[in-house]
Amino acid sequence: MRDVYVGGIGITTFTRLEYPLSEIAAYPAMMALKDAGIRDVDHLYVANMGSARVNHQTALASAVVDSLSLTPAGAAVIENGPASGASALKAGFAAVASGLHDVVLVSGAERMREVNNLEATDFVATLTHPLAEYIYGVTLPSHAAMFTRLYMEKYGLTERHLAMVAVKNQNNAMLNEFAHLHQPITIEGILDSPEAMTNNPYVAEPLRFFDACPVSDGGAAVILVSDDVAKTIDRPLIRLAGVGQATDTHAVHEREEPTDLLAVRRAAAQSFEMAGLRPEDVDVAELHDAFTILEIVESEEVGFFPKGEGHVALEKGETAIDGSLPINPSGGLKGKGHPVGATGVAQAHEIVTQLRGEAGDRQVDGPQVGFTCNFGGFGNNVVCLTFVREGR
Amino acid sequence: MRDVYVGGIGITTFTRLEYPLSEIAAYPAMMALKDAGIRDVDHLYVANMGSARVNHQTALASAVVDSLSLTPAGAAVIENGPASGASALKAGFAAVASGLHDVVLVSGAERMREVNNLEATDFVATLTHPLAEYIYGVTLPSHAAMFTRLYMEKYGLTERHLAMVAVKNQNNAMLNEFAHLHQPITIEGILDSPEAMTNNPYVAEPLRFFDACPVSDGGAAVILVSDDVAKTIDRPLIRLAGVGQATDTHAVHEREEPTDLLAVRRAAAQSFEMAGLRPEDVDVAELHDAFTILEIVESEEVGFFPKGEGHVALEKGETAIDGSLPINPSGGLKGKGHPVGATGVAQAHEIVTQLRGEAGDRQVDGPQVGFTCNFGGFGNNVVCLTFVREGR
Repeated sequence: MRDVYVGGIGITTFTRLEYPLSEIAAYPAMMALKDAGIRDVDHLYVANMGSARVNHQTALASAVVDSLSLTPAGAAVIENGPASGASALKAGFAAVASGLHDVVLVSGAERMREVNNLEATDFVATLTHPLAEYIYGVTLPSHAAMFTRLYMEKYGLTERHLAMVAVKNQNNAMLNEFAHLHQPITIEGILDSPEAMTNNPYVAEPLRFFDACPVSDGGAAVILVSDDVAKTIDRPLIRLAGVGQATDTHAVHEREEPTDLLAVRRAAAQSFEMAGLRPEDVDVAELHDAFTILEIVESEEVGFFPKGEGHVALEKGETAIDGSLPINPSGGLKGKGHPVGATGVAQAHEIVTQLRGEAGDRQVDGPQVGFTCNFGGFGNNVVCLTFVREGR
Repeated sequence: MRDVYVGGIGITTFTRLEYPLSEIAAYPAMMALKDAGIRDVDHLYVANMGSARVNHQTALASAVVDSLSLTPAGAAVIENGPASGASALKAGFAAVASGLHDVVLVSGAERMREVNNLEATDFVATLTHPLAEYIYGVTLPSHAAMFTRLYMEKYGLTERHLAMVAVKNQNNAMLNEFAHLHQPITIEGILDSPEAMTNNPYVAEPLRFFDACPVSDGGAAVILVSDDVAKTIDRPLIRLAGVGQATDTHAVHEREEPTDLLAVRRAAAQSFEMAGLRPEDVDVAELHDAFTILEIVESEEVGFFPKGEGHVALEKGETAIDGSLPINPSGGLKGKGHPVGATGVAQAHEIVTQLRGEAGDRQVDGPQVGFTCNFGGFGNNVVCLTFVREGR
């Protein structure tokens, strides 16, 4: 298996974007090509979930490869719910690692604010089990709320811990020019003040408005290259050293222990094993905090903290930018936004930026190993990636 | 790059299927596992185009991997318009060739008869250029009709040649138990008789009803395995020896020579080069005859016949099952049907069946090399595969 490196990266602002979806994928790709200083691409993978339904467009990869004038390069879309982005990176990794291609451009993009929030919520809910969940009206917020209730009862975390994730990530987002939310929040403002119940009402108890990520448009791109090509690129050398993926039951109620996220545990273990590293080697991580609870649970399942103790580490400030293991310095999905197909690629974008030491005001201190967890469905399809800064 | 073999294959009947889309993907996968006599799968790629729009379901791969009880195997959907199937085989090829996985199950499925024909036609049209084509009402039949008119003027083929493709493929489909159309047709009945204009009206002149493939539901699966795994499987040894893919301009009018299908030419050349073979080495081929004209043009662009002479070879019977280069013995998209995401995988299914010598009444005489062309968009994204029967 050949080594695979990150040649270049690019991103759009995550917000409401009023230009065509194909351009939301093409723009960060163009930035990534410029970043790498290369022009020849063998293959393009576009990560996207909603184009057929939300944007009335299919075969998006053909549109993007043409928009970038990269024809006759091969191109295809990878859809894997909210884990589309990292799934496309995995496919790109295999294409380069095999020797089939030397340069694979992976661009994730979503334009979901073309529909209203209700339609967007329904659209995202189509990733649940069609016969056991969706037809009964289950949505992702309701899944997350039921899970949170069980977690609170079992492990003793409270709404205050959830609010701490929201405050940390949304304030990290203040330091990220590409983030969707640029609105500083405090525990006082969203939980303790008389106005808190108005400012931050329950969406699905015990989850409140500020526990959920916004609905965002946006794109992010990462170019994966072979060793030979990496040598020609004058950028810090970042290797995609570990790729792990695991699935769990499609219907959440079929899981033996509903507070375990086994697919996260397995995908992380695979990723670390391939990289020859352990969770304690990680210096910075981007976890999939579509809901605040998920950051806490993932931080346990990937092996950073013992099960049930993620909220304790959070409370101690260990996951802050200046903590012992910074999580979601970008602002995470919560603060940066969650254009679904882009998210996994955007997580990689942040880790590469951090490992390069180019994260500006949100820079973590000298990281060498970075990690991403891209969470699909309600934990039924998870991809974890490990990145390592090498020599130069 | 490791060698990649076909471990097992499976298919559903192509018709109207009244069971869930995830099962349409799972059933042929189960058959393929049985065919291979294996149970462990590392990764699943599902090829599908319409689930989000037509079936109101996303993250289909998570549903299928669970339905097959293959969790915690990784899984994702590949969407690439009508070339989704072969694109998924390409991704599976890279996963095995790289050493990332030893066993990758590729299942293509579509359930598009859930909507009516008008909606299905509109849905397929969403693969055209959204700003330069779709908004003006372009559909795939209208694209194909304009192309056919130009081809007739330039190369002298007639409606009779188109009808000959229809008759050949639909009658081949009579020999295929999984084919959608089991209705024998004659040139007399669809072209020369007084009733022909009623039986076979123009859909988009010069294309008639019998020049277009039906709208089908269906699924097909192929298991790709490493050399080591292939050795443990007691089936004829078929290697996926060549994988080629190329794109062309997304808007058809931007092509310098509108009667050339450059992406077909390039994808085929790549596939042959990787396999170390030439077009004249091919013993049996499945070409993407969504419209009859396409079989003729592809047979030229992939290098079987000189440009503009495909219809001459057809007329001479060279592409019949007992001809010198049988094309679409399965019935092709025209006779077998075209469940969009399944098609590229179904083409591979037929080629493997032929190379194994298991095609029954439609068996080609002793083929060693087989070839597929899976045509996306209106020729803007094409994947060609070359299969070789080895030793045993």
